[in-house]
Amino acid sequence: MLNNSLMGLGVRARKSATELAIALSGVKNDALEAIASAVAFHMEQILAANAKDMAAAKESGMSDAMQDRLLLTEDRLRDIAEAVRYVKGLEEPVGRVVGGDIRPNGLQIVKRTVPLGVVGMIYESRPNVTVDCAALCLKSGNACILRGGKEAIHSNMALVSVMREAVESVGLSADCIQLVEDTSRETATELMRLNGYVDVLIPRGGAGLIASVVKNATVPVIETGAGNCHIFVDATADLEMAARVLNNAKTSRPSVCNAVETLLVHRDCGAKFLPMAADALAHAGVELRGCEQTVAILGERAKPATEEDWATEYDDYILAIRVVEDMEEAIAHIEAYSTRHSETIMTQSHDNARLFCDRVDSAAVYVNASTRFTDGGEFGLGAEIGISTQKLHARGPMGLAHLTSYKYIINGSGQIR
Amino acid sequence: MLNNSLMGLGVRARKSATELAIALSGVKNDALEAIASAVAFHMEQILAANAKDMAAAKESGMSDAMQDRLLLTEDRLRDIAEAVRYVKGLEEPVGRVVGGDIRPNGLQIVKRTVPLGVVGMIYESRPNVTVDCAALCLKSGNACILRGGKEAIHSNMALVSVMREAVESVGLSADCIQLVEDTSRETATELMRLNGYVDVLIPRGGAGLIASVVKNATVPVIETGAGNCHIFVDATADLEMAARVLNNAKTSRPSVCNAVETLLVHRDCGAKFLPMAADALAHAGVELRGCEQTVAILGERAKPATEEDWATEYDDYILAIRVVEDMEEAIAHIEAYSTRHSETIMTQSHDNARLFCDRVDSAAVYVNASTRFTDGGEFGLGAEIGISTQKLHARGPMGLAHLTSYKYIINGSGQIR
Repeated sequence: MLNNSLMGLGVRARKSATELAIALSGVKNDALEAIASAVAFHMEQILAANAKDMAAAKESGMSDAMQDRLLLTEDRLRDIAEAVRYVKGLEEPVGRVVGGDIRPNGLQIVKRTVPLGVVGMIYESRPNVTVDCAALCLKSGNACILRGGKEAIHSNMALVSVMREAVESVGLSADCIQLVEDTSRETATELMRLNGYVDVLIPRGGAGLIASVVKNATVPVIETGAGNCHIFVDATADLEMAARVLNNAKTSRPSVCNAVETLLVHRDCGAKFLPMAADALAHAGVELRGCEQTVAILGERAKPATEEDWATEYDDYILAIRVVEDMEEAIAHIEAYSTRHSETIMTQSHDNARLFCDRVDSAAVYVNASTRFTDGGEFGLGAEIGISTQKLHARGPMGLAHLTSYKYIINGSGQIR
Repeated sequence: MLNNSLMGLGVRARKSATELAIALSGVKNDALEAIASAVAFHMEQILAANAKDMAAAKESGMSDAMQDRLLLTEDRLRDIAEAVRYVKGLEEPVGRVVGGDIRPNGLQIVKRTVPLGVVGMIYESRPNVTVDCAALCLKSGNACILRGGKEAIHSNMALVSVMREAVESVGLSADCIQLVEDTSRETATELMRLNGYVDVLIPRGGAGLIASVVKNATVPVIETGAGNCHIFVDATADLEMAARVLNNAKTSRPSVCNAVETLLVHRDCGAKFLPMAADALAHAGVELRGCEQTVAILGERAKPATEEDWATEYDDYILAIRVVEDMEEAIAHIEAYSTRHSETIMTQSHDNARLFCDRVDSAAVYVNASTRFTDGGEFGLGAEIGISTQKLHARGPMGLAHLTSYKYIINGSGQIR
């Protein structure tokens, strides 16, 4: 049996989605402007709610890093409001004609983008995601059902309340932004099975959350964010460039999904490159876990890696290292362990660059650049609702266009088949 | 625990998909030509296998209509071979550049189509689907795992054996075409959960099959084929045209998903149009099931409809009829009961045509034309692997392009973020 209140929320979301689907750009943009203003105007109320979450977080012994993710400040709220205005300024994604022709029988076909309908989001900790997702969904004409983490519930309730009021102030239904206030696991599972009310579910969070969604969901899902990324340093690589790119990919922001987790080094340059790599990463105290040959070259600077290391997304100052016989072995390693997010080859060989790009089956394949660029903003998509690691519907960074579907509109004059 | 032999089949499919993904057009087309020739060359063997299925079908008391769907003949095999040559002649769907630019930092991004990987198909009865799907998957660089119905197992085994041999004869791995020979329900469920080995599962069949896949699958699914389609005859409609279109949509091929199931009539033209509709459908003996007003108008020509009728896809010579107050009520009815496949408005009003197209949320929305046109061939997609009734990835008729994903290839010169 479905949870009654969740079902009610689904019914209201579906109803508002029907209205929102045909809302004009101007109205949606007014709503976004109203949200941005309201977040600034109601700062005190939002910060007071956040203070409750922070108090509970301290009491529960949450780590400092996690507390920092949860914390809202006046500056952060101003940034959140600015992000909403940025979304407002993006190109309208709905109603674009993306195909069509006149058929030999005179049928005039137009293929036009439409919203997906109701987008479900299940995510963790950071309250800014609540506003980001609501804004992206609103811009793309989708109602959203947001299910954030328990630890941010007061912040999320305050933010959603403020946003709903803002949306209503321009004449749209508040129900296009819904928060699941019951943060139990059971209710999350019900949300994953709200067929007929949720058109797509996008989980954003750790491997555990994603796995639970894939296992339990019966609504369509876009898997996001798993990032076991690799850099392969080919024998022909510019080694100084490789050390620079490696350092950037590992240490500029190790907690994100596009950070590199495993370095693969061609054996012909291993003895020369590995000490350079260790030097480049030393400033950040990166822990190195290497294969036998790596340990033979680096000595005490590296610990021995286990099978588990190849499959692990550390999201931390840790790097797995493996010396490979050739590019074939590098590609096979990536095939075996990658989450198909982002991989880089560092090479000066045109042939190897081409082969690597053709054969590595990941959302983003780089030649001589940091994996950190896999991002909606960096790819020019405007804003990003997540990075898909599946092949269906969307792959890699997902922007507003990926929150739309399309329909065929066919004008005839009595044609029969 | 996963079925060992199914897992083995998944492993082999995945491996061959890796090779097939980078196979050149010429090689894939050679394989398709080899399949077409082989189907013709091995006719006797295939017909002998089909005879076994037909004998079992007769023994089990299968209906004549179903037996006809199962039957292969020399002519039908020649048609199947021709369909493969047609797929061969379609435009190469893999490797197309569908986006990209040079970023401000000099990164050169190319967005290129790639195969999905391994496509799972679960379908019923007709053995021609086995060859159609294999050909479409091969052309789009995908390995396929085919799970046809028990009643066609000997035909399918013969066809797959012939195709595998043909594929191997041009140097590709036979494992890119796999048949699940165990047709138990348990094995079908395992296939729906073969995460990591199946990139997308496309069920083709009745409502029961689709529902089972949606409930049980943990791999990404594209729902296809549910078609509770509507025709709304507006007060301004050209009634003769409406009767012609209705007759075509109901009787030209009632068993298919794009046939109309419910007629909605504006009350202002009900008294005039319903007798015309009944006359137009009389030649085919269509059973009419109407609302109270319909029965009041048509008398004994119509039976009373129940709530269940509005939700039923008859796939038969039966039509549900409802008289509505206005277009709002027609749109609300469609919103409540449609499977979001295809709907038609018959109208001479520009405003109503526009509103209907904007507000009806179905894959194909028609003005003054038969719903029967929702079809890959009719839409100019070449060939069709199914008609999606979901919004994610593909909506409406799916052709070769929908069997692809894309990847980003990024060329740099040492860029860091």
